[in-house]
Formats: sequence, C-alpha cells, structure tokens
Amino acid sequence: MARAMNFNAGPAALPEEALDRAQRELLDIEGTGLSILEHSHRGKTYDAIHTQALALVRELLAVPDSHDVMFVQGGASGQFAVVPMNLLPAGKSADYVVTGSWAKKAAKEAKNVGKVRIACSTEKDKKFARVPAQSELDLDPGAAYVHIASNNTIAGTQFDEFPDTGSVPLVADMSSDIMWRPIDVSKFGLIYAGAQKNIGPSGIVLVIADKALIENGRTDIPEIFQYRTHAAAGSLYHTPPTFSIYLMRNILEIVKSSGGVAAMEKHNREKARVLYDAIEARPDFFTSPVEKPSRSLMNVVFNLPTPELEAEFVAEATKNGMVGLKGHRSVGGVRASIYNAAKLEWVQALAGFMAEFHKGS
Amino acid sequence: MARAMNFNAGPAALPEEALDRAQRELLDIEGTGLSILEHSHRGKTYDAIHTQALALVRELLAVPDSHDVMFVQGGASGQFAVVPMNLLPAGKSADYVVTGSWAKKAAKEAKNVGKVRIACSTEKDKKFARVPAQSELDLDPGAAYVHIASNNTIAGTQFDEFPDTGSVPLVADMSSDIMWRPIDVSKFGLIYAGAQKNIGPSGIVLVIADKALIENGRTDIPEIFQYRTHAAAGSLYHTPPTFSIYLMRNILEIVKSSGGVAAMEKHNREKARVLYDAIEARPDFFTSPVEKPSRSLMNVVFNLPTPELEAEFVAEATKNGMVGLKGHRSVGGVRASIYNAAKLEWVQALAGFMAEFHKGS
Repeated sequence: MARAMNFNAGPAALPEEALDRAQRELLDIEGTGLSILEHSHRGKTYDAIHTQALALVRELLAVPDSHDVMFVQGGASGQFAVVPMNLLPAGKSADYVVTGSWAKKAAKEAKNVGKVRIACSTEKDKKFARVPAQSELDLDPGAAYVHIASNNTIAGTQFDEFPDTGSVPLVADMSSDIMWRPIDVSKFGLIYAGAQKNIGPSGIVLVIADKALIENGRTDIPEIFQYRTHAAAGSLYHTPPTFSIYLMRNILEIVKSSGGVAAMEKHNREKARVLYDAIEARPDFFTSPVEKPSRSLMNVVFNLPTPELEAEFVAEATKNGMVGLKGHRSVGGVRASIYNAAKLEWVQALAGFMAEFHKGS
Repeated sequence: MARAMNFNAGPAALPEEALDRAQRELLDIEGTGLSILEHSHRGKTYDAIHTQALALVRELLAVPDSHDVMFVQGGASGQFAVVPMNLLPAGKSADYVVTGSWAKKAAKEAKNVGKVRIACSTEKDKKFARVPAQSELDLDPGAAYVHIASNNTIAGTQFDEFPDTGSVPLVADMSSDIMWRPIDVSKFGLIYAGAQKNIGPSGIVLVIADKALIENGRTDIPEIFQYRTHAAAGSLYHTPPTFSIYLMRNILEIVKSSGGVAAMEKHNREKARVLYDAIEARPDFFTSPVEKPSRSLMNVVFNLPTPELEAEFVAEATKNGMVGLKGHRSVGGVRASIYNAAKLEWVQALAGFMAEFHKGS
C-alpha cells in the first residue's frame, strides 16, 4: 500500500529519504560488500558514520565546546536512573519538576538512587494541563540539579521557555523535544533524548552534557554508567547500536540539507498552527485539555464530546490512511504526534478530516 | 560488489535472507504502509514480532518453564554491572572465572558493585591459552553466583562442557556462544548474550534467567536494572529497540527452518574442523596459541611466523574478498570468527587461501 500518514508518538515517522537510503544500502554499503549491520564498530566504514553523526548533532544544535555529545544505550528510562547515579551524591538532593507521567517516573526512579525534592507538580490541581511558570518553581539553591521533561508526550504540554535554575545545573529529558528548533545548549547541565521521536529509531539515546559537570560526577558507580566513560571513549567504550546510529546520521543529514533546526522550527510551527486552528474552529466538538500557553507543538492532544466519538474518529481516520492517533492508554482522547518527519500535507489532511468528521456527526 | 566473506568478530555476518527480508519490508511491513522502525512498540504489528522472537528463543533453546526469556538494552558490558547489581547482595561475594579479556572486564566491573573472588584465572601462566578444568576451580560454596564467559572471542577459547557449580547459580556471558548448539538451560542461573555475534545486530541483549533467582534478587537498585521488571513486563517495560528485535526474529526463523540448533552445531563443527585442519596441515607456518581441548569453534585464532607475514596475510585475504581477519588489537595475529551465519564455502575458501599463501611464502 501507499505509505501511511504516521502520527505515532514514538517510535514515530521517519523521513522517507532516510529509509530509502537505508534500504538501498542494506546489503552493501559503500561498495564494501557488507551491510552496515555487519561492519565492525572498530572499522573505517562505521567509524566515519559514527564520527559524522556526533559531528552533525554538534553542528545542528550549535553545541559549545564546554559540552560533550554522546550516544548511549538503555533508553530515556535508563537515563532516569543514570542521571542521579552520576549527579546525585549522598548528602545532596535533586529538584524534580513534575509535569507529566514521564517526569513523574523520572522522579520516582531517582528516589531509588538518592534524595529527591519535588520542586513543582502540576498533577493534582491541573491534571498536567500546563507547565509551570518560573514563579511556581520552589527551587532549592543547593540542589545537585533540577530535572525537567521539556515536552510531555502524554499530556501534550511543552516548555516554550526553559526554567531559569541559576547556578544549579538544568537537566532535561528532551526525548520528544530535540532537534526541532534551535536551543541554547549552554543553559543546560545535561540533555538526554531517546531518539525514537525526532531523530531516529528506538534503542539509542543522545546525551549532551557539560564536561565539568560529568567530570565532577560520582565515581562510585559502575564504569558503564559513568558519563565520563562514554565521553572519553567517543561513544565507543563498548559496541554501539551501529545501525541505529547509521540511521540517525541519515536523518540528521536530511535535517541539515533541509535548512537545519531553524527551518525545522518554521515547518513544525506551521504544522501545529494548522492543527490547533482545526480544533479551535469547532470549539463545541473538539477541545484541548491543555492551557494555551503550554500547548505542545510536538504532541497535539484533543478530545471529542464522548469516548465513543473519539474511538470512531480514530477508527475512521485509520481507514483514511492516518495512523497512530489514539491517545495514550492512561488518558484516552486523541493525540497527533507531529515530529520533524511528519509532513505538512499529513497535518492538512488530518485537519480536513476533522472538519469532515465534525460535519458528519 | 559481491557480498564479502565476512569473518568479523562482532558485529558480524548476518544471514543474507534475513537482510533481504528486512530490505524488502523496510518501507512497508505487512502492508501497513509503515516501516517496522516507525511502528509503535504497543501496536499489533510490532507486538506479534516481539512475541514471536521471545517464543523462538524459548523453542530453539528448549528454555524450561523455570526460566524467563528477556530482551534488554545496554550491551553485554551493561550486564557486567547489572548482574551483580541484581544478584550480589552486601555480605556475599561472587566467584569469577577469568579466561579472557571480557571475563576479566566483567570481574572488574562487578568489583564496582560488590565483593568479587577470582575462582580461577588462566591469564598469568597461560596467557588465556585455555579454559580451566573443573579441578582447577577454587569455588566458594557460599558464593552468590559463579560467573564465566563461555567463549572467549579474543583468546579463541571455549568451554566445551560448562563448570559444575553445585547449588551455586552459574551465570554465563554467552555473547559469542549462543544459539549455535543445544545447551541445557536448566543448569544456568542466568545467561546473557549481546546479539551481535550469532543472533542479531548490536544494541540488544538476550537474557535467560531462573525465575526464582531474579525474583529473590536485590530490590535496592533502580527499577530499570531489575531483571524482574523486564520479566514481568514481557520486555516491554520501556520502548525496546524494535528493529533489532525484528531482525533477530528474522534470523531465528532461519535457524528454525534450517533445522534448529542441532543442525547449527553440525554446520559449525564442520566449519571449525576445516579451519583447524588447515592450520594443523602446515605446523611450521600456522600455529594456534590455544591448547587443543580449549579451542573455540566460534573464533579461530592463529599465528604466522612473523607479524609482518600476518599483516600481509590479512591484506591479501581482504583483496580476495575475505574481510575481518585481523586479530584483536590487544593480541595481534589472525582471527576468523565463524558464527552461525558464516558459510562453509567461506571457510573452505579461507582454508584454500591459507594453503596458497603458505606455498607462496
């Protein structure tokens, strides 16, 4: 069949050109007679790709020399533990800003490692309907770090501006918030991002970390979990997930040739505008559970008048080639994830379908 | 060019049919209009593959009901830490059998977690030239577990029979030793295997563990590192590396249709025989640094009279389409890794080349 319009939350749509290239090269890359999957991670062919992928991250996000770029395994969920293992020593506590299910899970896992303070939670009064203003954050100036999830895939909220944490390092889970717009990396102590939303397949995590921060991190943990290990080894301390990094390289090359993250931002803002306009045009039928200033540009969540209508909407959309629109099982509703690789025409088709569906109901 | 004869130690050769299938399906799997890389790990398409991959491991290795089968991330190097984090409580120590660089690294990492005893090391007197006999093992009957690396990729040695550890759980790194012959899983407390030798791409680890052992494991560690977490969630606690598991499924299906692990064993024994015969036929020119009963059937290492001749041998072989033959950088020499996917005709070609090279020198 034709390629579907993919609104999955992650693993998510990937740029077709990146997949085309992977398909073309799958049994023989660069005339070597081997698949990239079969190349040694210590050989020239893979090494060039690995180096290029790291360099593309640095270039596209303008990562300053003060920060290391790394690829690690274990998912963002792994980082929920690895961040405090490195950065939360005995006698200190870390501040967590709880704005959604994943941020909450990160805080919970950190408690298995050390002392955690909740600097703010938007769960009880607002059901994660917004991200907090700076003034709502109860920050401990002595904290080891402040942790945020900068985009909340389930709640559909996003920090437009990042919190100011003063001299306390800001650590951000940017799994669903990376590489779609320029950011000032120097403001972050550490960024981590599971690749499977904006930059690649599942099974690989991008970490960008302040060199001094990780150098001063704990040394009483296994070597494999120390950021300094991976930074020093150029992310080749052990066998990396070579195909995942290869595919990320393909994708980052497309981001670059498309005009970089500034062009991505324009593209993504337009997609989100089309979709939120479609919601707002029919306020008696489509409603957003999210407060307007907190709306995510990556995950657009909305409700219909009843769960039955929502189920019908998702089923009909699927028949029309639009897949992945079911809201997360913990909250229901509808969710359209529109990361970098989601096309404007898909979003326009979805907006058109929303109008049709409303008319027919 | 034609597909090369791939003797890489890992990532290594993969069955061409598994890659062909991945190539064919890469942009559209099962008529869904999506790549497997773009499917949700919670959706029907991926779920069927995930379930099938787990079931194939269970079936092919005849894993008994007493044991769980899991897929985890972080490489075998991750398991060097995760095993003691789960199984080595304060007040206990674990026995490590050190038969090569990786086994040594596993012991070193375990020391970052708890108390480690070296039950045997073949490093000093024998430079890892053999695996120990049962009588050489100084086992602690009170140990939390005994750890072995059942095949040593760098030294080129392998346990033909596994040590008897009595009532102490046997934990084995079988990264380069899995799925090539039948094993009695019930004798192991825990098996782990990075996939990138015999069963798949890098970025995914197979774990087979005694249910009672992991259930009684430590609970004072992050949830993501507890085996019980992944066992209870059917390896879907967090987003798995979906493509890697998909490809492993493709590979395991081929193992099954080829006659299962019994057929693999026959195939692999024949390949190893051809290669060791080629070495033994020219004892003044090719020598094996490994004691005969300890010879690995997966990684055949050998030396030529001088390092210069070894370099020339590897370079000439490469020109003849045989790649990956350079010995590990820590030991030099020549190494032919001949896992499941290496073809008998490649090994025959290599043996022929060895004869030619000897004649011409």
